[in-house]
Amino acid sequence: MQVLVPFATDAPKTRLEPALSADERRAFARAMLADVLDAVGEAGHDPRVLSTGPVSVEAPVTIDERPLSEAVNAALDAHFGEDSSGADDPVAVVMADLALATPGALGRLFAEPGDVVFAPGRGGGTNAFVSRQPDFRVDYHGTSYLDHREIAGDVGAEIGVVDSFRLATDVDEPADLVEVLCHGDGRAREFLDAAGFELETTDGRVTVSRRDRP
Amino acid sequence: MQVLVPFATDAPKTRLEPALSADERRAFARAMLADVLDAVGEAGHDPRVLSTGPVSVEAPVTIDERPLSEAVNAALDAHFGEDSSGADDPVAVVMADLALATPGALGRLFAEPGDVVFAPGRGGGTNAFVSRQPDFRVDYHGTSYLDHREIAGDVGAEIGVVDSFRLATDVDEPADLVEVLCHGDGRAREFLDAAGFELETTDGRVTVSRRDRP
Repeated sequence: MQVLVPFATDAPKTRLEPALSADERRAFARAMLADVLDAVGEAGHDPRVLSTGPVSVEAPVTIDERPLSEAVNAALDAHFGEDSSGADDPVAVVMADLALATPGALGRLFAEPGDVVFAPGRGGGTNAFVSRQPDFRVDYHGTSYLDHREIAGDVGAEIGVVDSFRLATDVDEPADLVEVLCHGDGRAREFLDAAGFELETTDGRVTVSRRDRP
Repeated sequence: MQVLVPFATDAPKTRLEPALSADERRAFARAMLADVLDAVGEAGHDPRVLSTGPVSVEAPVTIDERPLSEAVNAALDAHFGEDSSGADDPVAVVMADLALATPGALGRLFAEPGDVVFAPGRGGGTNAFVSRQPDFRVDYHGTSYLDHREIAGDVGAEIGVVDSFRLATDVDEPADLVEVLCHGDGRAREFLDAAGFELETTDGRVTVSRRDRP
């Protein structure tokens, strides 16, 4: 199965600004991308990065400078197009900031029956999907999970959903770092450990704090 | 399997104060409890509410005024105690605010192998667990998921984890209402619909807004 991992090289992860500098956000985004690529590979598939600019990773890269939805739809056009040999094969799109993704969680997504199978993200997002339906296209704006269900229904697709906390957890905001420290064990977790982040409990709520570095 | 659902009758869901009045929070908490009890029943088990005070529900109720961890540990003592007939049976504890819980998600938890099986919650919490290990006890303060793994390890339990977005989603804060409106279809969802809540997209982030009522 072709597995596309979209990645934005310019100013990634701006909502992590309260916790990480621009250089750190850049390095952390690349650590999460590498974790996702590893997990896809260990799940038995060959990932391809769909990047807005050049990026050095252990996977083939397609560069498309357009916004996310346009770039993904162009890739779906290419995959399912008349001239394509991929028209009978499914294609998957997995976000690059799923720092908790494991081969097992992705394997459940890839194995779930359905013409279009979604892994919903928190806050109405679509963190990953598999499409076996040539006419399905994406629109990531807003409550994309509900919109994508509607789009899939409109093209007559049977919809599947995989219920995964790991795949629902995209890392966008400082509060999301709690999840990486609790459940992550890859490069993203190592990055946060090395940067001095620790779990902290205040008033019964768990947050992250950062040690002063020497 | 005995399935305990802890419930606090006094001032429930205070962190929803920005979105709901005290009376509404009370009604919403009971709607979520009823949804959880339904899901446990449809998963093939008989739930029992472990409540801090009297509550009218379609399930047996045990009243224990003590804080959550003490009340759950007393129930584990009673279940696994020498005089108990339950010592060979597993016991489950499922939080009452898992508004997205479905029979399928709970069924995965109940079926997952392990002496102690956890459904982690967002923010380091423990949203549900099954214990087949008589010596396992709880401590819900702080990053309870990590603490519970340690406690389970200390008593020699083989640990299982169920990866479920639905079970990871406890509804504590206004942002969590997005999940109920996106993925819920029970009484909690009906409550929010009737109260005028709708999804709203602002700057690419999805939140809830509330219609003015006539």
